[in-house]
Amino acid sequence: GDGAPSARPAVTEFVGTNRLGDSIGLVIANVDSDLLAMMRLERDYKSLGILGARTGAGPQIFAADEAVKATNAEVLSIEMARDTKGGAGHGSLVVFGAEDVSDARRAVEVALAELDRTFGDIYANDAGHLEFQYTARASYALQKAFGAPLGRAFGITVGAPAAIGVVLADTAVKASTIDLIGYSSPAHGTSLTNEVIAAFSGDSGAVRQAIIAAREVGMPLLAALGTQPESASTPYI
Amino acid sequence: GDGAPSARPAVTEFVGTNRLGDSIGLVIANVDSDLLAMMRLERDYKSLGILGARTGAGPQIFAADEAVKATNAEVLSIEMARDTKGGAGHGSLVVFGAEDVSDARRAVEVALAELDRTFGDIYANDAGHLEFQYTARASYALQKAFGAPLGRAFGITVGAPAAIGVVLADTAVKASTIDLIGYSSPAHGTSLTNEVIAAFSGDSGAVRQAIIAAREVGMPLLAALGTQPESASTPYI
Amino acid sequence: GDGAPSARPAVTEFVGTNRLGDSIGLVIANVDSDLLAMMRLERDYKSLGILGARTGAGPQIFAADEAVKATNAEVLSIEMARDTKGGAGHGSLVVFGAEDVSDARRAVEVALAELDRTFGDIYANDAGHLEFQYTARASYALQKAFGAPLGRAFGITVGAPAAIGVVLADTAVKASTIDLIGYSSPAHGTSLTNEVIAAFSGDSGAVRQAIIAAREVGMPLLAALGTQPESASTPYI
Repeated sequence: GDGAPSARPAVTEFVGTNRLGDSIGLVIANVDSDLLAMMRLERDYKSLGILGARTGAGPQIFAADEAVKATNAEVLSIEMARDTKGGAGHGSLVVFGAEDVSDARRAVEVALAELDRTFGDIYANDAGHLEFQYTARASYALQKAFGAPLGRAFGITVGAPAAIGVVLADTAVKASTIDLIGYSSPAHGTSLTNEVIAAFSGDSGAVRQAIIAAREVGMPLLAALGTQPESASTPYI
Repeated sequence: GDGAPSARPAVTEFVGTNRLGDSIGLVIANVDSDLLAMMRLERDYKSLGILGARTGAGPQIFAADEAVKATNAEVLSIEMARDTKGGAGHGSLVVFGAEDVSDARRAVEVALAELDRTFGDIYANDAGHLEFQYTARASYALQKAFGAPLGRAFGITVGAPAAIGVVLADTAVKASTIDLIGYSSPAHGTSLTNEVIAAFSGDSGAVRQAIIAAREVGMPLLAALGTQPESASTPYI
Repeated sequence: GDGAPSARPAVTEFVGTNRLGDSIGLVIANVDSDLLAMMRLERDYKSLGILGARTGAGPQIFAADEAVKATNAEVLSIEMARDTKGGAGHGSLVVFGAEDVSDARRAVEVALAELDRTFGDIYANDAGHLEFQYTARASYALQKAFGAPLGRAFGITVGAPAAIGVVLADTAVKASTIDLIGYSSPAHGTSLTNEVIAAFSGDSGAVRQAIIAAREVGMPLLAALGTQPESASTPYI
């Protein structure tokens, strides 16, 4: 938000926030069983960690992937709203589960901290945005959200308006020997966002090289619609 | 709208507006039969009342509920757009039907006036919003939209970003002996909004107490993402 | 975009932009076959033309219709995002195919240029928008997007908030002897936009007369919610 955040809330469920994406982390130590039954989670746990954001799904999902690697929590559901506060993309709701509330809390804390990195290769101007993500080793959050093969390098390219995302996908897949394992567009696989999202798996160097090649093509294309796109944080790829 | 509204339009169909939610009320005395056949209404009536808004579905649906209690009109369809002018929630389109155009018009007038009240427990800041609604006796609009049992007390909690809405739901259902009868989230039951909406039925005092408990937890959580949330009108719960 | 556009990008795929709707035109000379297989196109072509926009689907589809009339390219897919940068309507992604890249490029160029005209009868204020489109002879893009009968006159009315669109549809269908061939609303047929879109086919003069009648009713209705709506370009109907 633009306003000065208030004092830390005196609410048990509060874990923390990250100004990137208006992200908030929460925890429920012992969730109500009727509520749990309606939440369509993959498994039932009594302790839930909750990561939500107005802007971003990719950053939160890649952050959640690090959280499940680093903790005893599991990712139980990932939902993507059509949001971005008037922008072209997604907001997100990620639910972690754990036997112990301290594990759920820890997962949320790790994910909130990782956002500083995973917002690094988001570039936006008034007309749209580009997003690039990369990991050397995909874990359960990326498997759940994108069907990423476990333990292999994985990356995504995102372009908005969606037309730019088509060219990013084509550029990446031609730039090195990788597998194109996903393609989402406004009417298929996104939450009606104005994005094309392409997902790539393969050898570590090859995936990274493909993502970088796409970024080099995407930046001048988005710039043609407005000002030079700027990183939301510090680029990491 | 931000601009000064123009003079009252000299159009037969115009009933009125309410600045809350950019809401407009219209009426069609004798709807074209080809159009009627395409509108997917629950029943056919020749006279339609139409309530539409850029921001809000809860306020308009609770207002429509009062309108059907107070008039000879029926609610024929309720559709929720993904809107809020860049915010995290819904806009709405409610269609009333009546045998007589004066009944359709009256329903729209009642609903437009009720919005002053039903926007009262919407609290927003730059990062999101909370919504609370309560009625001692649910009627046909709430039954249609939320499956509310007729004649019983009914309420909803809404939190955006959706993460906050999960905690509101858990807080409310634990606060008193009520039935959780609905849970909607970005990917299930909403129009891809960044909200969790929980719906509660039960005894009048219990439902009201649950809603108030959720409101007390939600306010500091939303405030943690920005400024202190402010009511869009005058709180009524 | 609001910012000053950068220099023309030195990227092979770039064709051009139109500030109306933040529209961009791109071309891929020889699309990757794995990508092509995932794009859900109606037919496979190795050369693709791509027209994308943050704001508008009607203007881009009517522009694409002129492009397929004027070139050897075909429309392979039309997707509508929920966008308009916080407004009530759609963004769009239109993919053309051609045997030869020069034909794909030409289709994109024609469509980008046509946008100056097809944005002419979009009228907006802070509260919503109206859109009117008309052609004396529908071709393949309009057939694909709206089911328009080939070679006949065709038009659409769009009102946002959706309530206004209901009255536009009723006004148009009553104004002359035309066929109502489509009706889309927030929950059916749109990408959850806050619009009602009605589509009309018939004799040239009758369709045009119906569209003009709807425009005359719609302008004061939208004005009742804010300032006098203004054309995004130069009215053509």
